[in-house]
Amino acid sequence: MTTGRDEAGHDQPRDEDAYALDPKAVAAILYAVDIDDRDKLVELMEPLHSADIADLLEQINPFDRARLIRLYDKEFDGDILSELDESVREEVISVLNPDVLAEAVREMESDDVVDLLEDLEEPQQETILDALEDSERIAAEQALSYPENSAGRLMQREVVMAPEHWSVGQAIDFMRANDDLPEQFYHVVLVDPRVKPVAQVTLGKLMAARREVPLIDLAEEEFHIIPVDQDEEDVAYAFNQYHLISAPVVDADGRLVGVITIDDAMVVLDEEHEEDILRLAGVGDESSLSDSVAATSRRRLPWLAVNLCTAICASLVISQFEAAIDQLVALAILMPIVASMGGNAGTQSLTVAVRALATRDLTNANVMRVIRRELLVGMLNGLCFAIVLGTVGMLWFDSPLLGVVIGVALVVNMIIAGFAGTVVPVLLDRLGIDPALASGTFVTTTTDVMGFFIFLGLASVVLL
Amino acid sequence: MTTGRDEAGHDQPRDEDAYALDPKAVAAILYAVDIDDRDKLVELMEPLHSADIADLLEQINPFDRARLIRLYDKEFDGDILSELDESVREEVISVLNPDVLAEAVREMESDDVVDLLEDLEEPQQETILDALEDSERIAAEQALSYPENSAGRLMQREVVMAPEHWSVGQAIDFMRANDDLPEQFYHVVLVDPRVKPVAQVTLGKLMAARREVPLIDLAEEEFHIIPVDQDEEDVAYAFNQYHLISAPVVDADGRLVGVITIDDAMVVLDEEHEEDILRLAGVGDESSLSDSVAATSRRRLPWLAVNLCTAICASLVISQFEAAIDQLVALAILMPIVASMGGNAGTQSLTVAVRALATRDLTNANVMRVIRRELLVGMLNGLCFAIVLGTVGMLWFDSPLLGVVIGVALVVNMIIAGFAGTVVPVLLDRLGIDPALASGTFVTTTTDVMGFFIFLGLASVVLL
Repeated sequence: MTTGRDEAGHDQPRDEDAYALDPKAVAAILYAVDIDDRDKLVELMEPLHSADIADLLEQINPFDRARLIRLYDKEFDGDILSELDESVREEVISVLNPDVLAEAVREMESDDVVDLLEDLEEPQQETILDALEDSERIAAEQALSYPENSAGRLMQREVVMAPEHWSVGQAIDFMRANDDLPEQFYHVVLVDPRVKPVAQVTLGKLMAARREVPLIDLAEEEFHIIPVDQDEEDVAYAFNQYHLISAPVVDADGRLVGVITIDDAMVVLDEEHEEDILRLAGVGDESSLSDSVAATSRRRLPWLAVNLCTAICASLVISQFEAAIDQLVALAILMPIVASMGGNAGTQSLTVAVRALATRDLTNANVMRVIRRELLVGMLNGLCFAIVLGTVGMLWFDSPLLGVVIGVALVVNMIIAGFAGTVVPVLLDRLGIDPALASGTFVTTTTDVMGFFIFLGLASVVLL
Repeated sequence: MTTGRDEAGHDQPRDEDAYALDPKAVAAILYAVDIDDRDKLVELMEPLHSADIADLLEQINPFDRARLIRLYDKEFDGDILSELDESVREEVISVLNPDVLAEAVREMESDDVVDLLEDLEEPQQETILDALEDSERIAAEQALSYPENSAGRLMQREVVMAPEHWSVGQAIDFMRANDDLPEQFYHVVLVDPRVKPVAQVTLGKLMAARREVPLIDLAEEEFHIIPVDQDEEDVAYAFNQYHLISAPVVDADGRLVGVITIDDAMVVLDEEHEEDILRLAGVGDESSLSDSVAATSRRRLPWLAVNLCTAICASLVISQFEAAIDQLVALAILMPIVASMGGNAGTQSLTVAVRALATRDLTNANVMRVIRRELLVGMLNGLCFAIVLGTVGMLWFDSPLLGVVIGVALVVNMIIAGFAGTVVPVLLDRLGIDPALASGTFVTTTTDVMGFFIFLGLASVVLL
């Protein structure tokens, strides 16, 4: 494997395709489906990781998807199902042979089953719950009783725990005797007699210690307990901030009910980022490439509708200066520049603020300093571009005064942009509204309206 | 801890402050610094995690920061240093007592030292390299010889490995005898006689197995080897896609040289997301809240300069229709709406495309389908809003024909937006340019220029 990135920096062409699906392999698979050759299909799919199979299923069209799944039949397993994007899961489940589905679901870990169940409609949920064994079904139903997006939904219930007074030898003997250990675990959680977690020991430490050493002597310095109703976003933040690998989850009485591992936190972190980036662009936050035209169109309508209203507001502002434009068409030609520069500067400020709020770097301790900085940056960049744009305006329309007017309007609008770009997300955040969702509209409306108003207003007073 | 999020959905007010610094604690710390009370400061800082101390240092002003660090003095440790954001690291290092710095650096893990070193200027690099013991210094210098942002920079060199023919008992005895095991490790890597990794065993499996079982029988099904020169973005992708916890890193000859753990991959993933979100907004990708006004202003200038050029281009298009506007001022009033709607629709499409390229969900297999979908969505949403906007235009200016013109212009511009919003990022990606960096400019320029051109052009032909 080679990488195109060099010593000098970030922007060299890179080998983006390091882990992309091989187009030839995809073509061969689709051909096997076309000619209905099950043996060939199974052979071709064999080297693929279940995550890659899920990606493949997402990328092909619904017709091929259904044919592939039917032909693949009983090779389809629980891992593929858990890797699939929500947007195609329902479709895949409805296509799957019910016996294959039941088998696949029984193989899954408890947290994956919950993750699958929570996005399904009632009848499909029932089908899957019915496929589970009794104990599993009760566990899944209990997990679903926790609030959506909470630690309770994210955790796995299989925990390796030991009484706090045990020695290393006792813990190792217990684990050797236990056939039902989780697939992956990284800590032994030490609990008191009421099953409250008191410490945890990494397997590495356990492994390196002599048998008679008390477990409690090996306890990790950092120990983070997560309440079962904590929001998954906070859980992901804690994992990222404190470099946790796994953390015990407790109920309202402080009793150990499960464990969350870093790979689950990583998935949440990824989803939160996706949500932020899509919300900032005014795209529904669960958009996916596999959505239909109708679904995509419906998801994007609301933000476009809001934008239409604000654009009409801006036009109403312009219409107040109809007479001025009638007298001097140059105003109509130049006015979009003032609005556009303000909009861009505002978007810069608000993106920085939204991101800093998400990472909790923007707090009471520094909010005034950040606002001051944004005002100064707006002024400084405004002045730079005012000189350029003023000169352009002056030469283009042969009017020094027009140059001054557009320059002043630009500086003022860019200061407003810096201010609105920071204050709007901070206020929304304080009001409990996700700043990524709504800031953009407020900020660009402000810079559009103010941009047109200041430029046209100033021009009316000074030039006409 | 309570969470405000309820069963129904995402947008309830949440307890954002779950892990935020307590403003009262911050105030008390700053007061202790003010009155120069070292004992009080140490006492107040004691309960804080090093990541929180780093956040605190980033959020206060440079003057308080320097005073706090000087007063905190020898309590300052390597963990705080590795948690600090690049933007304040140099400043902190220059303020730190050289002896404290040397001690802090000696405590750090090898990958953290490299992470610290790679962002520093030559003289500070020297200071830190000199503080290290010989073996550590050579190791650090070797890590720095790998390309920037490569697996070699990310990995830690401390690996727990065992010959492939060993049994569980041999591995455990070896670990018990070894005083120098890494702080955190999750696998034992099995190597052949030429130190090439052949498999890995999780500690959980090792722990649960009887002593005489051969290690190779416990080998994990999924085994992922990372080349030392692989880009860290690809490494993070592999961890996320294949749910890796740790993975061995090999040199060009396939020999084991280190190991990357999921917490490092999570940091990279977080940085990549930050880069994408900031680049999409035209903010320098290493922006930080602690940057100075001058640095911030300089970072944001380039994109604003590009925007000024494209805004002037759009104005040039408008100026071609000076006569039309002169005859019908309504055109000047309505034209920003067409451009703004196109810009928004284009941003929606491009954000989805940029994100899908980053997650490798947009590939050859589905690119034509996605483009077709975006064209249809543009047309569908364009038609919806054309009816609304056409009616508005018709009633406002009492001209049915003007309503038709603006409606048609809107539909066409939104189809163009969907097309440009998808094709531009895909083409940039094929050319090896980060689509997050440059797509926005191209797409909004297209929608602005085309918006004005289609609306004013059509109006000139039909109305005048």
